[in-house]
Amino acid sequence: MDSSISITGLRGLPLIQKDDDIAALICNTTTLQNGDILCIASTIVSKANGYSRRLDEITPGKQACSIASVTGEDPRFLQVVLDQAADVLIETPFTLTALPWGHVGVRSGVDASNVEDGYAIYLPPDPMAEASRIAERIFEITGVLCQIILTDTCGRAFRRGQTGHAIGWSGMTAIRDFRGDTDLFGKVLEITEEAVIDEIAGFSNFVMGESNNGVPVVLFRGCPAWKGHNEIYFTKSQDIIRRALQKEEC
Amino acid sequence: MDSSISITGLRGLPLIQKDDDIAALICNTTTLQNGDILCIASTIVSKANGYSRRLDEITPGKQACSIASVTGEDPRFLQVVLDQAADVLIETPFTLTALPWGHVGVRSGVDASNVEDGYAIYLPPDPMAEASRIAERIFEITGVLCQIILTDTCGRAFRRGQTGHAIGWSGMTAIRDFRGDTDLFGKVLEITEEAVIDEIAGFSNFVMGESNNGVPVVLFRGCPAWKGHNEIYFTKSQDIIRRALQKEEC
Repeated sequence: MDSSISITGLRGLPLIQKDDDIAALICNTTTLQNGDILCIASTIVSKANGYSRRLDEITPGKQACSIASVTGEDPRFLQVVLDQAADVLIETPFTLTALPWGHVGVRSGVDASNVEDGYAIYLPPDPMAEASRIAERIFEITGVLCQIILTDTCGRAFRRGQTGHAIGWSGMTAIRDFRGDTDLFGKVLEITEEAVIDEIAGFSNFVMGESNNGVPVVLFRGCPAWKGHNEIYFTKSQDIIRRALQKEEC
Repeated sequence: MDSSISITGLRGLPLIQKDDDIAALICNTTTLQNGDILCIASTIVSKANGYSRRLDEITPGKQACSIASVTGEDPRFLQVVLDQAADVLIETPFTLTALPWGHVGVRSGVDASNVEDGYAIYLPPDPMAEASRIAERIFEITGVLCQIILTDTCGRAFRRGQTGHAIGWSGMTAIRDFRGDTDLFGKVLEITEEAVIDEIAGFSNFVMGESNNGVPVVLFRGCPAWKGHNEIYFTKSQDIIRRALQKEEC
């Protein structure tokens, strides 16, 4: 019999509020084991940390108003998007930005869904640190070593539809590195880097659902381990698609 | 207790040869149930169908030789890439093409790994039809209705590392469509389309591994059903990143 991976969406978590201890709430919901991978929607991490802004306290600047005049979005919402961005790749028809820690996403990952009216929620400013903190807190409570992936839902180039992506992780590397491995015929592989955390984050997003399912945490048990590295973000000069888009803007 | 999804890489399949009956080989390896999803590496579908070309029978043309002079690749291999393409988006540093059925991929998805020396293997020319054929053949053998996803490993914009993507499917829709759904606070959702088949294909790729693992088929049991549509490929005019890249080329 082949060994299986078992994947469970954790039901029964309360609606997360500011100052909630997500790690403790997870530990109350399920019994964790060493090596478990927990994918956690970054939205709830932002909520627990208060990473949100009241729109009526925001005065939009010139760029936000200019984009809003084309897209019809709330210029205050767009100001939150621009405030999060280190670089704007595309302004319209959708605002595509790079965040200071390397992630490229539509509207800087800022969201007005699944948050109270009149608020915009933004991604954790240091998602790697958040992932580590949750792993440490789970270890503190249970003595169990879990791997953590914070996820966000993002569009892709060339294909319609959003998928889950990893934005922060702890206890694993982002990339599985096959360098030096050989194929079935003994030839050295050409494809050497697999973004396994995005593959795991993507499937967790399928299990979470996107609407009112209320399953923000997904548990993966029995995944094989891997080795690799964490360099998932291209530098600006390595990224030929980003370079092409920004020439377009000029 | 929450219901879990169980995911198993099918071990024990033989190395696939031309004219092998993949559906029958899968049915010999495991006992399927109605609603199971099988992710199948498109490589083995190409092998079973003989979708490969001998490099020593290929005379590369001018464009292939020109790209090869920059990238150092075998110009005959590049000729296979160009022969598969309906449109070339980028020539160098890597050749990015659109296939006739809409998929955009590096080197048209043509591969020289996991195939005998001196051959290049290309993607099934009609992957939707291949997925249907496998589903029908499984039904013929077992009376079980499975859902099939053919997968390929592709790079992404803005992020390093390859991930599994769906290139053909049967018994499901590509996109889960949340249009009209509301969020936890009753607001109509902004994000309405999720490319669930890519999320499933991605995770199957993690289970398959990329090198000499020899696990080309992954079984998903217990996935929730969804409704949606199959329009996963942008048309050329909808795809602003493609348009930006092709302006770059001019």
